[in-house]
Amino acid sequence: MLKGHQSWLFENKPVILSTATVVGPEEGAGPLERDFDVIHEDMTLGQTSWEKAEKKLMEEAANLAIKKSGVNKGSIQFYLGGDLLNQIISNSFAARTLAIPYIGIFGACSTSMEGLALASLIVNAGAADHAMCGTCSHNCTVEKQFRYPTEYGSQKPPTAQYTVTGAGAAIVGRTGEGPVVTGATIGKVMDMGITDPFNMGAAMSPAAADTLQAHFRDFQREPGYYDLIVTGDLAAVGYDITKGLLKKHKVPMEQTTFKDCGLMVFDREKQGVQAGGSGCGCSAVVSYGHIMKQLKEGKLRRVLVVATGALLSPLSYQQGESIPCIAHAVAIENERS
Amino acid sequence: MLKGHQSWLFENKPVILSTATVVGPEEGAGPLERDFDVIHEDMTLGQTSWEKAEKKLMEEAANLAIKKSGVNKGSIQFYLGGDLLNQIISNSFAARTLAIPYIGIFGACSTSMEGLALASLIVNAGAADHAMCGTCSHNCTVEKQFRYPTEYGSQKPPTAQYTVTGAGAAIVGRTGEGPVVTGATIGKVMDMGITDPFNMGAAMSPAAADTLQAHFRDFQREPGYYDLIVTGDLAAVGYDITKGLLKKHKVPMEQTTFKDCGLMVFDREKQGVQAGGSGCGCSAVVSYGHIMKQLKEGKLRRVLVVATGALLSPLSYQQGESIPCIAHAVAIENERS
Repeated sequence: MLKGHQSWLFENKPVILSTATVVGPEEGAGPLERDFDVIHEDMTLGQTSWEKAEKKLMEEAANLAIKKSGVNKGSIQFYLGGDLLNQIISNSFAARTLAIPYIGIFGACSTSMEGLALASLIVNAGAADHAMCGTCSHNCTVEKQFRYPTEYGSQKPPTAQYTVTGAGAAIVGRTGEGPVVTGATIGKVMDMGITDPFNMGAAMSPAAADTLQAHFRDFQREPGYYDLIVTGDLAAVGYDITKGLLKKHKVPMEQTTFKDCGLMVFDREKQGVQAGGSGCGCSAVVSYGHIMKQLKEGKLRRVLVVATGALLSPLSYQQGESIPCIAHAVAIENERS
Repeated sequence: MLKGHQSWLFENKPVILSTATVVGPEEGAGPLERDFDVIHEDMTLGQTSWEKAEKKLMEEAANLAIKKSGVNKGSIQFYLGGDLLNQIISNSFAARTLAIPYIGIFGACSTSMEGLALASLIVNAGAADHAMCGTCSHNCTVEKQFRYPTEYGSQKPPTAQYTVTGAGAAIVGRTGEGPVVTGATIGKVMDMGITDPFNMGAAMSPAAADTLQAHFRDFQREPGYYDLIVTGDLAAVGYDITKGLLKKHKVPMEQTTFKDCGLMVFDREKQGVQAGGSGCGCSAVVSYGHIMKQLKEGKLRRVLVVATGALLSPLSYQQGESIPCIAHAVAIENERS
């Protein structure tokens, strides 16, 4: 299964039996509106705190993914989940409700693909017949935890990003119908010394570029192998830097379509989201909503999702530490097309 | 590899090539003094913050484990790590220093065995030749984050536990000399409604008992298969409750020796540690220090380590949520004896 130095080739082709996405009003008003399963108009989801709302987003996405898969909940052996909240409470509390053996993970906004990579590894290795992975974020919980009290309404610089309110989940199975996961590349922690938590895109760019290069090296592939390569949440600033870095390293990205989930989920002209979307939910809802739909419809054949994560904590940056970042890549292919 | 409903049987017997443990002064003054590789007399490790000291503990344990394994650092494909600090910064920052592809995990104090289970799975599946796992905790970082400012010196109830200052790391390889990992059981999140963060032992007991029962059911084994079954950090209160729960469910624990790392790491008579030790470092330093030594010396043949974790955050308990808990079990056997 080991491919090259830091990648996995899934020769048994684990199947994504189903995915589900649940989002908030801002995401529902964006260009991908039709690709989400549920759009909530109320940011609280009728809960008494934003944290409880975020947990509910995750539970809804997980339960819907299970329902859509047609697999009995009791037949899903493991749930791999994580999120941005301290001690990943949204997922741990959702795992309590789901009552599925639980593997807590954390890769900040790269958690979506960390989870899909591990779930696919587990299924590919015969260590589960079905595994679920999921992640979520909520604009109001993340703002208050990482930046300022939400009610404070502080102004943001144009390099800042808007945390997606949304949850995505996927059921991976040994057999069945659906796009398959063919490989994954686990990233290294990269840190180029950026200390500004309002400029995550710039901080994450070197990690995205490094993982992409590692992926092409390990699989001996060129970008043109994929119809679409999509990064997690670099947004406008980070996307441009990453393009520049890849160009500098002579990676022929012109062979493929290169996009970023943070630029796809919102309409930056009409929605006040600064540089674009971010958060664990960003790559999750774009991949499990929009991209999965396109794969299933045959509009895409081979996609590489490179989810990016900034591994800072409010404390680490208050103590003057720079922002270590990571990116994990997962290759999803539509065998039928 | 799937065994029963929630367990893995590692038929290729991944080898624990080396382990390393680095602890603080209180642990060094305890009964397991001779089993640790490094004992620091200075809680700051010469760093400017406790968080930086915790990170250094992790880096030292990881580097020492690599050195002891004789494996070139570049040949270790993946590092699986996590800790109690918000956004698992100790491990993410250590992973930056180590420059090994990194899989962030979180299971609170069960992180030690979550990491060893996943590293063993990866190696058993041929997805790596060598993988490293590690975790750490620091008394001063955890106290300030989860309870009161450290300098405040608040009194604690006798049900409270003393967070271990220590880090442990293990190198798992496909071939080589050393005890082998033969199986693992991934736990479900259990929550019996306990809301007191000064009584983690009681909160974690049902998870420990549930995972133990799942392990025996999945492997069709009785406790007597093991010379030693050791829980992570239940300490005095949780250990007694767990014993009672297992008795109630007619699990014949009298067939084996049943201990708890939280009761082994300190001398409760002489050291002011209330109910006993806790923290990610607790099961890590006891398992990777004391237990590994006994396995290597042939004093133990088959051990089941059931690391327990309380998945709360300060915010979740301030919002009145109860404490969801989990336990992951890993079977380590000394083939040579």
